[in-house]
Amino acid sequence: MSKSEVVELRVLEEGGVVPCCRPITAGELSQADAEKMAAMFKALSDPVRLRLFSKVASHPGGEACVCDIADVGVSQPTVSHHLKKLREAGLLTSERRGTWVYYQVAPSVVAAMAAMLDLRG
Amino acid sequence: MSKSEVVELRVLEEGGVVPCCRPITAGELSQADAEKMAAMFKALSDPVRLRLFSKVASHPGGEACVCDIADVGVSQPTVSHHLKKLREAGLLTSERRGTWVYYQVAPSVVAAMAAMLDLRG
Repeated sequence: MSKSEVVELRVLEEGGVVPCCRPITAGELSQADAEKMAAMFKALSDPVRLRLFSKVASHPGGEACVCDIADVGVSQPTVSHHLKKLREAGLLTSERRGTWVYYQVAPSVVAAMAAMLDLRG
Repeated sequence: MSKSEVVELRVLEEGGVVPCCRPITAGELSQADAEKMAAMFKALSDPVRLRLFSKVASHPGGEACVCDIADVGVSQPTVSHHLKKLREAGLLTSERRGTWVYYQVAPSVVAAMAAMLDLRG
């Protein structure tokens, strides 16, 4: 498939429609797509958020309770703030079960980011 | 290769040593690696920077003169500022030839970011 033939697919996620699967080498991003993708990258632009994200992603079963991942050296309200930002950006989903909120990585959103950075296309 | 067997490779880039190729599902990021990777994601967290980056990445020949990519709706000094940020983060390299500076994507740095977001590991 040549670069010009790459079809821009879109994936419907909880957080909205995200540009998906089009490598950055395939062509210039539109302003609208750049704004959506920049918001996702921004969610990972903070070391504490990135560590929380890696803790959820690497947790057995692919999900983590906030009680499992809060040891990142910041206060509980700060942990909650960062998890909210990750959720708002569409990178994590969450579900309350009993006392705790459980977080899961949103695989298609993360895959869209990875696909965009795929230079082999 | 099981997650625990994933070897953390490191790539030497102009911008320094970057954590490479270890998917985020393989384990928690250290604080030091989180800081390095967060700086790279931060470079792509601005829509104008992301558009400039996509223009370089998708330009024929894999490199672009600043004269080719400056039409992103902001002033020339702002374009220069954003290109400097992308260069400082290690995502672009640059080379002056005659009157113009040419920018290239740094493939191993971008590959490290993509590998980190690879959830298939």
